[in-house]
Amino acid sequence: MDNQHQPVTVAILGATGRVGQELLKVLEQRNFPIKELRLLASARSKDTTIMFKGKSFGVQEPCAEAFKGVDIVLASAGNDQSAEFAPIAVQQGAVVIDNSNAFRMDPNVPLVVPEVNGHVLKNHRGIIANPNCSTSQLVPVLKPLHDAAGLKRVIISTYQSVSGAGKEAMEELELQTRAIMNDKEHKPVVFQKQIAFNLIPHIDKFLENGYTKEEMKMVDETRKILELPNLAITATCVRVPVMVSHSESVTVDLERPLSPQQAREVLAASPIVEVWDEPERGHYPTPIDAANEDPVYVGRLRADTSSETGLNMWIVADNLRIGAALNAVRIAEYLLQHNLLHPAVASK
Amino acid sequence: MDNQHQPVTVAILGATGRVGQELLKVLEQRNFPIKELRLLASARSKDTTIMFKGKSFGVQEPCAEAFKGVDIVLASAGNDQSAEFAPIAVQQGAVVIDNSNAFRMDPNVPLVVPEVNGHVLKNHRGIIANPNCSTSQLVPVLKPLHDAAGLKRVIISTYQSVSGAGKEAMEELELQTRAIMNDKEHKPVVFQKQIAFNLIPHIDKFLENGYTKEEMKMVDETRKILELPNLAITATCVRVPVMVSHSESVTVDLERPLSPQQAREVLAASPIVEVWDEPERGHYPTPIDAANEDPVYVGRLRADTSSETGLNMWIVADNLRIGAALNAVRIAEYLLQHNLLHPAVASK
Repeated sequence: MDNQHQPVTVAILGATGRVGQELLKVLEQRNFPIKELRLLASARSKDTTIMFKGKSFGVQEPCAEAFKGVDIVLASAGNDQSAEFAPIAVQQGAVVIDNSNAFRMDPNVPLVVPEVNGHVLKNHRGIIANPNCSTSQLVPVLKPLHDAAGLKRVIISTYQSVSGAGKEAMEELELQTRAIMNDKEHKPVVFQKQIAFNLIPHIDKFLENGYTKEEMKMVDETRKILELPNLAITATCVRVPVMVSHSESVTVDLERPLSPQQAREVLAASPIVEVWDEPERGHYPTPIDAANEDPVYVGRLRADTSSETGLNMWIVADNLRIGAALNAVRIAEYLLQHNLLHPAVASK
Repeated sequence: MDNQHQPVTVAILGATGRVGQELLKVLEQRNFPIKELRLLASARSKDTTIMFKGKSFGVQEPCAEAFKGVDIVLASAGNDQSAEFAPIAVQQGAVVIDNSNAFRMDPNVPLVVPEVNGHVLKNHRGIIANPNCSTSQLVPVLKPLHDAAGLKRVIISTYQSVSGAGKEAMEELELQTRAIMNDKEHKPVVFQKQIAFNLIPHIDKFLENGYTKEEMKMVDETRKILELPNLAITATCVRVPVMVSHSESVTVDLERPLSPQQAREVLAASPIVEVWDEPERGHYPTPIDAANEDPVYVGRLRADTSSETGLNMWIVADNLRIGAALNAVRIAEYLLQHNLLHPAVASK
């Protein structure tokens, strides 16, 4: 970013988690203007020290005192921690960019991918929600297609990496894979079933309508971000034995015809989408291509054989970056660039 | 099967391959009435011996002579071998049940999953095609739904195991996984890209319309088997780091409403489909559940949030069995039970 902005005080809630670590990496890579950095995590992490820009930082427990003087809280410590501490941090004058599910569907909380709907940030009242990872990489693709030809229906099947379930989940995939390679057993703890060399069509809890919460997050959050409350959309979410990056097989029906080539051009114009779509030379994105990278990659664009105005595509992105840390930091950058740190407090 | 039938002479073309081995296992498990067994494979396998029902069998190279006196050829040696030897075997008086892609779309060749369209077997002229693995497990689910409520549109995303690409592909996943766990490299040979801890949205060759051949096989073969030449259907086929069993996330639009519970009942009535769909107790199929099993498993049945008469579901089956060997042997059993070994020859 343009780091000419006056440096600000940043707190990271959940600093020792997988997304917390990615947040620190992204802040450093983007040279985010930090005056003071506070790393917050639960009691069991209290003896941890963490390096940032060559300096060592201790970790403290979150409490009202810890948020005093903080400008921006980047929260990634789960629903309960966010529900408890976000309001406290806001009371202390901070803006909270929250990666949990606690506030996403709250009508008073903007749910934002800045390149898609940054304009709603001006309405924030202290808490801003970061979408779920599988939604974050979908909406930057859907939005330009909607603007070009009108979205009529969206059907998604996901292939989600284990890092979406945290550090322990990544360890479980690794240890379970090693065990199986050595004809040993490694019982599932984080996941409901074996994940090594297997697939689990079950992410988050089951709901009454037979969908999982993860699936309904994609439905509800996409509708909210695109401001299309009645969009016909459905999702099937599946965990796959991949470490990092989520992939999505997506079918869209459009109001007006749009050729695959027109779709490629529309998508290539996005600042955060990269089109990798030259099948004749085997050029399409896979999870390992997207890991540690910023763009949302799109490939396999083609006219749907089942619909006159349909398109099929394959979307891959690093779920820890665009799906979490990178999007959170981009929201923070947007707030600084547009002087939106405390607008609602000021306007009350 | 009812093994009261007069024993027949069976040849297996491609006996040393992954499907060839599975064919032997299925023939033995089902106590198929074999008078004489001939194992055929390319020259490089000529010193191999293979055990069947406790006896050791040598492997011979295929040639006209080798098919003399053979009643049924189970062919699984790839397109080129099938294209070359199937007509030769038919000339020698055999019926060829072919697992390759060589004859599937030939209008004179029945393409069969016996429980779905066994009636077309009476029209065979010596060659009968076994559908592609991803189609074989789809049509037993689509057919009862079509009979109950009329199929309007089908959208499929697959999660296909490496065994679909043969023994070498399974070895590549294993060796590459070991290498990565030890921070070493193992370059892709069978696959286009790394498959361990990765996904490859590319199975078989790319075609001019941007689809892969694998995807168009699902489209064309499903239309042929269901006798719905204009069915609106599309597929995205993805290779996943799973050893055995293909999974499919499927959305269907129906002509008439069908509730998830009605769909479960309709599917449960099929002799080869098993409904595993009690999400409240975490009961849904995964690849390791289906491996080495006969049924096509269906779970995650739910009303589509994107369509009034849509259903979403998750289909899993052993691609080597229902997707290849088991279906081939079931075709052979059907031929014996209905005295269809030589009908076309007789009626000519």
